[in-house]
Amino acid sequence: MTEERLRQLLEQVAAGRLVAAAALERLRHMPFEDLGFAKVDQHRALRRGVPEVIFGEGKSAAQIAAIGARVVEGGANLVVTRLDPKKARELRRRLRGLVYHAEARLGLIVRRKPTQRGQGRVMVICAGTSDLAVAEEAALCAELFGNPVERLYDVGVAGIHRLTANLERVHGAAVLIVAAGMEGALPSVVAGLTDKPVIAVPTSVGYGAAFGGVAALLGMLNSCASGVTVVNIDNGFGAAFAATLINRVGIARERR
Amino acid sequence: MTEERLRQLLEQVAAGRLVAAAALERLRHMPFEDLGFAKVDQHRALRRGVPEVIFGEGKSAAQIAAIGARVVEGGANLVVTRLDPKKARELRRRLRGLVYHAEARLGLIVRRKPTQRGQGRVMVICAGTSDLAVAEEAALCAELFGNPVERLYDVGVAGIHRLTANLERVHGAAVLIVAAGMEGALPSVVAGLTDKPVIAVPTSVGYGAAFGGVAALLGMLNSCASGVTVVNIDNGFGAAFAATLINRVGIARERR
Amino acid sequence: MTEERLRQLLEQVAAGRLVAAAALERLRHMPFEDLGFAKVDQHRALRRGVPEVIFGEGKSAAQIAAIGARVVEGGANLVVTRLDPKKARELRRRLRGLVYHAEARLGLIVRRKPTQRGQGRVMVICAGTSDLAVAEEAALCAELFGNPVERLYDVGVAGIHRLTANLERVHGAAVLIVAAGMEGALPSVVAGLTDKPVIAVPTSVGYGAAFGGVAALLGMLNSCASGVTVVNIDNGFGAAFAATLINRVGIARERR
Amino acid sequence: MTEERLRQLLEQVAAGRLVAAAALERLRHMPFEDLGFAKVDQHRALRRGVPEVIFGEGKSAAQIAAIGARVVEGGANLVVTRLDPKKARELRRRLRGLVYHAEARLGLIVRRKPTQRGQGRVMVICAGTSDLAVAEEAALCAELFGNPVERLYDVGVAGIHRLTANLERVHGAAVLIVAAGMEGALPSVVAGLTDKPVIAVPTSVGYGAAFGGVAALLGMLNSCASGVTVVNIDNGFGAAFAATLINRVGIARERR
Amino acid sequence: MTEERLRQLLEQVAAGRLVAAAALERLRHMPFEDLGFAKVDQHRALRRGVPEVIFGEGKSAAQIAAIGARVVEGGANLVVTRLDPKKARELRRRLRGLVYHAEARLGLIVRRKPTQRGQGRVMVICAGTSDLAVAEEAALCAELFGNPVERLYDVGVAGIHRLTANLERVHGAAVLIVAAGMEGALPSVVAGLTDKPVIAVPTSVGYGAAFGGVAALLGMLNSCASGVTVVNIDNGFGAAFAATLINRVGIARERR
Amino acid sequence: MTEERLRQLLEQVAAGRLVAAAALERLRHMPFEDLGFAKVDQHRALRRGVPEVIFGEGKSAAQIAAIGARVVEGGANLVVTRLDPKKARELRRRLRGLVYHAEARLGLIVRRKPTQRGQGRVMVICAGTSDLAVAEEAALCAELFGNPVERLYDVGVAGIHRLTANLERVHGAAVLIVAAGMEGALPSVVAGLTDKPVIAVPTSVGYGAAFGGVAALLGMLNSCASGVTVVNIDNGFGAAFAATLINRVGIARERR
Amino acid sequence: MTEERLRQLLEQVAAGRLVAAAALERLRHMPFEDLGFAKVDQHRALRRGVPEVIFGEGKSAAQIAAIGARVVEGGANLVVTRLDPKKARELRRRLRGLVYHAEARLGLIVRRKPTQRGQGRVMVICAGTSDLAVAEEAALCAELFGNPVERLYDVGVAGIHRLTANLERVHGAAVLIVAAGMEGALPSVVAGLTDKPVIAVPTSVGYGAAFGGVAALLGMLNSCASGVTVVNIDNGFGAAFAATLINRVGIARERR
Amino acid sequence: MTEERLRQLLEQVAAGRLVAAAALERLRHMPFEDLGFAKVDQHRALRRGVPEVIFGEGKSAAQIAAIGARVVEGGANLVVTRLDPKKARELRRRLRGLVYHAEARLGLIVRRKPTQRGQGRVMVICAGTSDLAVAEEAALCAELFGNPVERLYDVGVAGIHRLTANLERVHGAAVLIVAAGMEGALPSVVAGLTDKPVIAVPTSVGYGAAFGGVAALLGMLNSCASGVTVVNIDNGFGAAFAATLINRVGIARERR
Repeated sequence: MTEERLRQLLEQVAAGRLVAAAALERLRHMPFEDLGFAKVDQHRALRRGVPEVIFGEGKSAAQIAAIGARVVEGGANLVVTRLDPKKARELRRRLRGLVYHAEARLGLIVRRKPTQRGQGRVMVICAGTSDLAVAEEAALCAELFGNPVERLYDVGVAGIHRLTANLERVHGAAVLIVAAGMEGALPSVVAGLTDKPVIAVPTSVGYGAAFGGVAALLGMLNSCASGVTVVNIDNGFGAAFAATLINRVGIARERR
Repeated sequence: MTEERLRQLLEQVAAGRLVAAAALERLRHMPFEDLGFAKVDQHRALRRGVPEVIFGEGKSAAQIAAIGARVVEGGANLVVTRLDPKKARELRRRLRGLVYHAEARLGLIVRRKPTQRGQGRVMVICAGTSDLAVAEEAALCAELFGNPVERLYDVGVAGIHRLTANLERVHGAAVLIVAAGMEGALPSVVAGLTDKPVIAVPTSVGYGAAFGGVAALLGMLNSCASGVTVVNIDNGFGAAFAATLINRVGIARERR
Repeated sequence: MTEERLRQLLEQVAAGRLVAAAALERLRHMPFEDLGFAKVDQHRALRRGVPEVIFGEGKSAAQIAAIGARVVEGGANLVVTRLDPKKARELRRRLRGLVYHAEARLGLIVRRKPTQRGQGRVMVICAGTSDLAVAEEAALCAELFGNPVERLYDVGVAGIHRLTANLERVHGAAVLIVAAGMEGALPSVVAGLTDKPVIAVPTSVGYGAAFGGVAALLGMLNSCASGVTVVNIDNGFGAAFAATLINRVGIARERR
Repeated sequence: MTEERLRQLLEQVAAGRLVAAAALERLRHMPFEDLGFAKVDQHRALRRGVPEVIFGEGKSAAQIAAIGARVVEGGANLVVTRLDPKKARELRRRLRGLVYHAEARLGLIVRRKPTQRGQGRVMVICAGTSDLAVAEEAALCAELFGNPVERLYDVGVAGIHRLTANLERVHGAAVLIVAAGMEGALPSVVAGLTDKPVIAVPTSVGYGAAFGGVAALLGMLNSCASGVTVVNIDNGFGAAFAATLINRVGIARERR
Repeated sequence: MTEERLRQLLEQVAAGRLVAAAALERLRHMPFEDLGFAKVDQHRALRRGVPEVIFGEGKSAAQIAAIGARVVEGGANLVVTRLDPKKARELRRRLRGLVYHAEARLGLIVRRKPTQRGQGRVMVICAGTSDLAVAEEAALCAELFGNPVERLYDVGVAGIHRLTANLERVHGAAVLIVAAGMEGALPSVVAGLTDKPVIAVPTSVGYGAAFGGVAALLGMLNSCASGVTVVNIDNGFGAAFAATLINRVGIARERR
Repeated sequence: MTEERLRQLLEQVAAGRLVAAAALERLRHMPFEDLGFAKVDQHRALRRGVPEVIFGEGKSAAQIAAIGARVVEGGANLVVTRLDPKKARELRRRLRGLVYHAEARLGLIVRRKPTQRGQGRVMVICAGTSDLAVAEEAALCAELFGNPVERLYDVGVAGIHRLTANLERVHGAAVLIVAAGMEGALPSVVAGLTDKPVIAVPTSVGYGAAFGGVAALLGMLNSCASGVTVVNIDNGFGAAFAATLINRVGIARERR
Repeated sequence: MTEERLRQLLEQVAAGRLVAAAALERLRHMPFEDLGFAKVDQHRALRRGVPEVIFGEGKSAAQIAAIGARVVEGGANLVVTRLDPKKARELRRRLRGLVYHAEARLGLIVRRKPTQRGQGRVMVICAGTSDLAVAEEAALCAELFGNPVERLYDVGVAGIHRLTANLERVHGAAVLIVAAGMEGALPSVVAGLTDKPVIAVPTSVGYGAAFGGVAALLGMLNSCASGVTVVNIDNGFGAAFAATLINRVGIARERR
Repeated sequence: MTEERLRQLLEQVAAGRLVAAAALERLRHMPFEDLGFAKVDQHRALRRGVPEVIFGEGKSAAQIAAIGARVVEGGANLVVTRLDPKKARELRRRLRGLVYHAEARLGLIVRRKPTQRGQGRVMVICAGTSDLAVAEEAALCAELFGNPVERLYDVGVAGIHRLTANLERVHGAAVLIVAAGMEGALPSVVAGLTDKPVIAVPTSVGYGAAFGGVAALLGMLNSCASGVTVVNIDNGFGAAFAATLINRVGIARERR
């Protein structure tokens, strides 16, 4: 896939160690394995430096188990997101060692303790107890991706003093993930108080004109405080992934 | 219109001082005057205790002048909202004494200094300089409706210290009008800091996913801080009207 | 939190009665108690003069019970909104004294009879029997917040005479809460007939292009009758809260 | 097109008075005339009993003139809707006898005074002076389509007594067209007071969350008063057309 | 309520046959009966000439039964719309004589055979078998409201010959109700073929970008064929009501 | 229906072999059969060259069985789309030979092996395993409609090398169907790599701001790569139908 | 870019005729030319078999001229879409030979008469004269892309006989492009009458709830007639491009 | 905002070097300067480490000049975003040294060359020439904020080889800003090829169902490639700000 590999391949061909047809074949089949209904990309973990992640919604337990088994065979850690309790029960029978975090709807198989890498701590903040599920999805994933994680929960803007009382902790983080539902104002306030990147996660908490998280999403996209970027509604995993990449800015990858 | 008047009328009829047909006629023609294209409701000022207000958008200068002339003839003050500069120029030629506030897009004729009535001050807060037009529409109207008004501008949540530095003034108000665009988070923060009613006015300031004030509107409707009620986007006049009624709660009307 | 407290604190520090570090610590820990997943703000009741309220949706019964227990320990009344029957049953086993109002989906623990405070009566009006749940949420909350409450139900605009027959009662109220679904026209009509503040509550009653209350919400925001302010769809509690603050305008708080 | 004509044609063929090929040809070319960019349907006036109408928006003055000339040549009356002033000036040079109603944005050529047909009067009601343009489009069209028309303007729900004072006139109409912007509540109130069909026309009057007439449209579609049907935003012409068909229910067409 | 009654009342007062206070009282209590949670409007049937209708959604079976019992006591027919099977079963135990039409989700009690009144037949057309539920709601209601009804089902535009083959029947109707989901094109085609009023009913049939009937609704509102008016999504009852009023245009009410 | 038939009919009438009334009757009843609630169009299969298809959603099993029985009696193949498992079980008892494909939610009765017709292969591509249901609906239908079909699954843009490794297969197809959820970017990338028509199918896979497939739908409609056309969300059947017509461009129909 | 080229390159490297670094360089720079603000892809014409097309909106005349000059230098034909009259005038001074079609907003430079290729005719149908601009964009582009084109304009569903009178022409086409605004029903009707692929183009013609073409777009996506695929609103060019690819299905490309 | 400052203040008070009232006063007035209509926050630059930025839309040239003058007096650099050419001309007369970048709509006054700080290069990528304005806003701001910036323009997914040919440059960046309109697919593809944080900027380029950038925004929020975060439509400045904070992760601030 990468240029380096292409260059190596071309050099092998030039050196007569590989014929063109074989090179072509290798290019085609190398980076993934084909299960028919899914192409397991065992190199992605290496390529992006994080565990393989399966989006659990819309896949049957059997499909998840089949993909997951290949991932685990390769020695990698496994994360299944959006895993409802019923599928989790079925999956636990098929995938030995799967741990289910009900609140965060995550299924995890941790073969190797994740290597801690990153410029500092990832802080996960949430506005209310109702946003906890999304915040925990972010926090657990960020931990598994090798970041030190700190949690600061239930500090919404209706009682701004709960946040200001924890300012020192906020200032100590390298990257901030802020999950909020309803009007989604918390990331703006947090970003106004710090000079660290803020990843805003709208949650689907609320009712009526909250429109399943759209109000919070719009609030965050229109944040008057600069430095805020946004991920999809309830996408704790995505926030953790982005926070991980940000936390590694300036850090050379160990191997590629 | 009101029950008292109906009762008086019925009593006059019962007393033989008025025949039924005449009573009916009076009921029909009394409360407004018909200009053909508009029915001037000179009693509304009395009924609701505020000056007559003309919504200027979508009416020609000639129409506004005709309605306005009748209002002014009756001795009442006049407010024309949503008045663009071109129409204002034309209107000034037709309606003697009209003062135009360009920023707030208001045309005013103040015949009688408004009587000061109300439990306290109305404070008008806005998030940024771009929200000033709407805030001024609210502030000028609130003054004309007989409230002492105090302004606190450019105190958005991106620099929350600008607001907290003015908390004492905030606490001194009886009713608060808070105008904000973009994510519209300011009313939530204000409401979290006070125990006075907060009227939130979303402004159409912003771009992209601000959707002309919809993001701010949704943010305010979903405020996690209780006590916030909302008016239409850019509706500074409406906020002032509501604030006036709220400020008079518990105060007997002078006459009816 | 408040400036007075800050001033007191500063004076204590200046007087040598408190060292700076302790003052800082106090500032941080005073106003709330940390349960880990929630920060119970026992002072909010004092700060805003109403009981502590828990938004029940999206929280487990266990979480609600834990937060509620702390609230009740402090001697305050408790309101749990958006409480579905199943969670209510579970909660009643954990929180002694909880009374469940199924129609309004409210769980209440009333330790102290609320002190009656306010300039007058809060009237709760609804358009149809289908809006009753939201209207009752508003009425029960308003009572618990210390307002005399009067109900006027099923007076929608399709039979406007049902409303006009009750005009005298309408005129007797200090604040009006008007709940309506479908086209949400009732608040406009009510506001046109009175000079009291009207809080409009759109309900999710209706089908098709009612869009779960959006049609009513838009209708209310665009009310041609001034003095109407709006809260979120189905937000009876929020309307009651705002009505309470409005009803107390001009009334000094007993203690702070 | 119609069954009768097809039957006649078939009988002519059966009688040997027409060969099949000719019949086919006649079927194809009879009901309209082809201008290349437009197919003038001179029979539509006969078929539906109203003048030919050209939707003026998105057509050049030249195109309108070309279509219009054919219509007028056939002796029919002509209505051009959505005609802006600039195009109207250009069109008046090309189409002799065109009268332009600026407010209603209508261009009319009335060759034959329309025959009065219908069960009764069509009443056109509007909520505010700003809705007048749409109401006039409806009223002028309804007149041209042969209905006696009565206007009742500026009777919005914010001052419901202006409407109730005119109830007798309302009861005297056969069909009602009710135009309203903002929250669009007027048709519901009118329909609740009468037993005649009500055609609601949302207008794009308003601002902010009026969304160019969407709030009024939704309000009308969700009317709690039965008997209300709705046409497109600002579609005064369409309302007049429907009212005409309704007013002719039970009246045999003169000729076809 | 009506002017005639007011006039009579005034005359009675003038004649000394009624004191003012009593007249006022009568005005207030006459037109409806108060059940607390509902105000039964027994005169509406008389006022609008149709049976009393209860919107079943969002009301409990007990509430429907209580309102229904009063309606039936008065001798009127009863229609309950949006009645799901479970509530229907419960209601049948409480309201003797209730007949449930599962497909149309209607509960009916027919005490008196409806008097046939109207200029002609109401034809109910639907596009596909999936639209049948809504079409039947319209057809059954229209029958109960005293119209001769004719059904023409499954004639959608994908096979336009099914419609054209029935043109004679279409031409024979006085009013047309056309229900269609998906793109909602059928009313336009029908209106182009006839000169009778067409009431379009969008149905929530379809998937994906049908958005629960919104696509059909928009299609109908934007119909290029004039004479089409629209009711809310799935609102078969509303279409029947409007069709009834239209079918009675020009027919004097028997009594009032 | 068709012109040829009309010509034949007219010639028969002209030749005296058919009287006009009979011809008219024949025109009306010929092309479909009326079951009351449905008009079975047995000629459509001939007219459009594909099996009869029943849209299963919103129809009862009994209705589907009744329509299906008529279709099968005529010797045609049958496709029931959007068939949920419960209805499928019931239908299998009523319709002998029905095969149910649970993943694609299709019920099929294949009486005659479909004749292979078309310029080449139809390739069905999908972005992720979660899009498989829609892709399979497309693939199975395309096979039944007589196309050779090739599948290429799980080649989304997050790992673009999985697609580029299969370019040769992509280039070998005559028509491409590309199903994708989330941001729906795959069709753009595929269309940029080939010169064959691409039919894009947005799927409802995703969460939050995916809005049930709307994000993917918009992405596909706004594709920067030309040659992409779009069908409704999750409409695998529609994509297969269009691909079939495209694959037959330039191929004469066998019989008509 | 393509596999063949990659294979050739690899063979050259294997044969020692090319060193690896040079191969890599060639891979990178071959397929396009870099103007800094744009990368002119002169091979795209060859790759996809159509002229280079510049999207004119949002680009300055200078930018268009610079890109266009390179395209023309290479001997290819040029199409500039979305070109407003002012920019066209400026562009004509900079690009010799540019012909501007004002109605279709197209700028064309035709160096070589396009080779006619394709299975048959592309027919462009539009509903009304107001849709003509989009239809002409489609027709002119389709001609330039080498298709015989036939136009059938102003045959909307409000007068369905205008379409049925032209059925023979419709049946003679290989591919159909159908442009319609308002409710967008025409493609459904056309698709129901033919067995050729139908590409639907929603136009932004209409007002109010047409929402700039959204109503037509939704109508087309939800077409009850199968075989319809849809392109973006007003995207005549995109429809022509897709029609071209469809018309070439089964035809070998001359050279690549 | 400044715990350290608060601690210092408290210590000064404790040491008797400051009385409580003065401390309170200082707290209030320190961090900003009040112009009446705006509160200039001269410390924000220090606090967040970037120049002061004025959002130019919705402010008059006079207001911008007044705010800008204060900013510049303090020695800081100034950025005015969303500055249209007319206002820029006026502003240039009032603010000496203002340089206007017309394409990016930026007004800049650079007093001090920005200090280069950051882990590496910020790469700004855009999909098409039409996205250039937004990309340049991002690139110029990122440069002014002290980042080395590299541009890679016109590499959209319709010709994916233009991107893959530049992979080495992409891999060399520390943070990536990717601007794209239409379907907004480019950030997904870029994120799939790298392990650096990707900030996606939807642009309002496109037409029809692009909805002014909403399609691109949704595409980016639903990106199937992890690591993508999103800012508001056309918000090049916001992307640059966030990229700056990310690029400084792990770098100690020089002074605070």
